[in-house]
Amino acid sequence: MNMKIIVETSARHIHLTAEHIEVLFGKGSALTVRNELSQPGQFASLERVDLVGPKGTIKNVLILGPARKSTQVEISLTDARKLGIKPPVRESGDIKGSAGIKLAGPAGEVIIDEGVIVAKRHAHLTPEVAKEWNIANNEIVLLKIDGERALIFDEVVVRVSDKFAPAVHLDTDEANAAGCIGEVYGTIIKK
Amino acid sequence: MNMKIIVETSARHIHLTAEHIEVLFGKGSALTVRNELSQPGQFASLERVDLVGPKGTIKNVLILGPARKSTQVEISLTDARKLGIKPPVRESGDIKGSAGIKLAGPAGEVIIDEGVIVAKRHAHLTPEVAKEWNIANNEIVLLKIDGERALIFDEVVVRVSDKFAPAVHLDTDEANAAGCIGEVYGTIIKK
Repeated sequence: MNMKIIVETSARHIHLTAEHIEVLFGKGSALTVRNELSQPGQFASLERVDLVGPKGTIKNVLILGPARKSTQVEISLTDARKLGIKPPVRESGDIKGSAGIKLAGPAGEVIIDEGVIVAKRHAHLTPEVAKEWNIANNEIVLLKIDGERALIFDEVVVRVSDKFAPAVHLDTDEANAAGCIGEVYGTIIKK
Repeated sequence: MNMKIIVETSARHIHLTAEHIEVLFGKGSALTVRNELSQPGQFASLERVDLVGPKGTIKNVLILGPARKSTQVEISLTDARKLGIKPPVRESGDIKGSAGIKLAGPAGEVIIDEGVIVAKRHAHLTPEVAKEWNIANNEIVLLKIDGERALIFDEVVVRVSDKFAPAVHLDTDEANAAGCIGEVYGTIIKK
């Protein structure tokens, strides 16, 4: 069976609560859709904020919508070093005890005590594809990428939902380490 | 056979010609040793220059000594994106047709038309270790790294010299993708 899947790079981005959107962008503000993402319902917004860490600042960071129940900042370890913080490698939503940061927007600032993570590399699968490939939700699989920086990622966690489109998400460090430029496909291998 | 080897992270750095050292730091200047590196004779200097690209600048970049016959800038693909240049993945010394950049020092500037590369991941081996492990100079091997970001790098080129100490060198994107923090060892696997 050929378990070929598109590999997408997640640049650093932020998910905000409705409350934090109002603090950062002003009372009554909401996110403006710039473009839809591959995962249904998710979008990149026009809004931007700065991440301010103890050692450095990263300006104009992308915000993804829609608003969420918790504010979550997903950065690379390269970014973390620049900011001077030590976020853990975690699955999205698993932010308990993760790193804190200051977010600076045009209308105000928000300091979060936790919510900064380095996203654990993962594959989104639909129930149909997961069944065909005999892969369970939360299963850890390998992902093989060919090319001049060929490698095999271990520790790729699979998430199955009928709200997903099949895709692997890597952060920028991972995509660069694998030489992913343009439209890239990898192959999932069961462990 | 256990082909265990230390994995070292090469942060962005620059090798300069004696002529460029004088342009950047002033007539009669030479590099000052800050600390010795793992490869015999190589050192990190106290001197720093800025890399100035069409899209951005990276300040205070480390210079390694001693002076070389060609100026060479080794950066990550994350750095390349920030600078706005597209360096190829190359072995050290193979700079023909690679990317250009402006270097800005305290005494002057140098513009190079080529010399900027992303270092191809590689293993330094002594002839004794290479013989014991049955690995030839220029052989491509795999490198397995365990941990929460476990992976297997392909396309690791082996260089054998009696001037080397055994070590794998990754760039910061690769080290971050593999979760290398602190003293890390990997395992070489023959293809």
